[in-house]
Amino acid sequence: MPDSADNLTENTLNSELIYDGRIVHLYKETVRLPNAQTATREVIRHNGAVAIVAFDADDQLLLVRQYRQAVRRALLEIPAGTLEPGEAPFDCAVRELQEETGYKPGQLLPLGGIYTAPGYTSEFIHLFLATALSESRLAQDADEFIELLRVPLPEALRLIASGEIADGKSVSGILLAQARRTAV
Amino acid sequence: MPDSADNLTENTLNSELIYDGRIVHLYKETVRLPNAQTATREVIRHNGAVAIVAFDADDQLLLVRQYRQAVRRALLEIPAGTLEPGEAPFDCAVRELQEETGYKPGQLLPLGGIYTAPGYTSEFIHLFLATALSESRLAQDADEFIELLRVPLPEALRLIASGEIADGKSVSGILLAQARRTAV
Repeated sequence: MPDSADNLTENTLNSELIYDGRIVHLYKETVRLPNAQTATREVIRHNGAVAIVAFDADDQLLLVRQYRQAVRRALLEIPAGTLEPGEAPFDCAVRELQEETGYKPGQLLPLGGIYTAPGYTSEFIHLFLATALSESRLAQDADEFIELLRVPLPEALRLIASGEIADGKSVSGILLAQARRTAV
Repeated sequence: MPDSADNLTENTLNSELIYDGRIVHLYKETVRLPNAQTATREVIRHNGAVAIVAFDADDQLLLVRQYRQAVRRALLEIPAGTLEPGEAPFDCAVRELQEETGYKPGQLLPLGGIYTAPGYTSEFIHLFLATALSESRLAQDADEFIELLRVPLPEALRLIASGEIADGKSVSGILLAQARRTAV
């Protein structure tokens, strides 16, 4: 599909740093709209992340349960983590899978990716499909508490349908893995 | 699946408002971790949103192309918008579909929902499946410039596979609609 977006483009006139945090780098930006008016956009610059749809030797999907302060509850998600500055997404996926699950992938394939909330954050999550896992644990982040679960793919699809898996990267990643499996 | 998250829960000790914007309300929060240590969390409180997988009378999926300042490019997405304070998700979906596409749904069914980036934002997007569309335009937001496209569902799935649709709510919504259609 050709990019016909030229008539939609906004041009940045000004970018003011509001807050420079650990994860969140918040800017208030002024843009010139296609109709030459100006508007204000609140924009988070995020370093990007990875998430991994990983199947163990029994073809069970690895899920992690983790408390998420932003939503004030624990969520069931696929393993994931934020890119270190300069880190390649592939390397980050290998590292995060080991940190969060204690497994290293023998095969790691790209599964596309998603912009999580492009209305206000630059975050792009690179999705991967991991198989041929072998045990290999790296230390978790000191402030991360994670419970590991394993479910067959049909059960994961049921958990999505019931809303028990409601994390965006997990819904996208699992359904993309399912689509690829169906296509083979 | 029972909620076994009690041993994961973080308790809020302090919440400091950093920036109170139009879309982004940023807080810096201190939490007590399960191991009794403390940690800092950057948290965006977001009012939530809706996104709509809408099929017209020719069974074509409605997509919108829109420039996204946060990612500095135009993206292909399903119609979506932010909840007004107190607005019901169903009503918001009817309103946003009319504003962004000029169609009103004769049937609007819930299709689940996703937390977009629960590591740092509270945003939950309610997903809907809209059919039996009739023409009914509401004025767009003054600072929104949107191009409407229509594609058959197999073409939308191809655009996801190729990465041309890479917006998280759109990937989740379209694949959930496809799964529901396959299940019927």
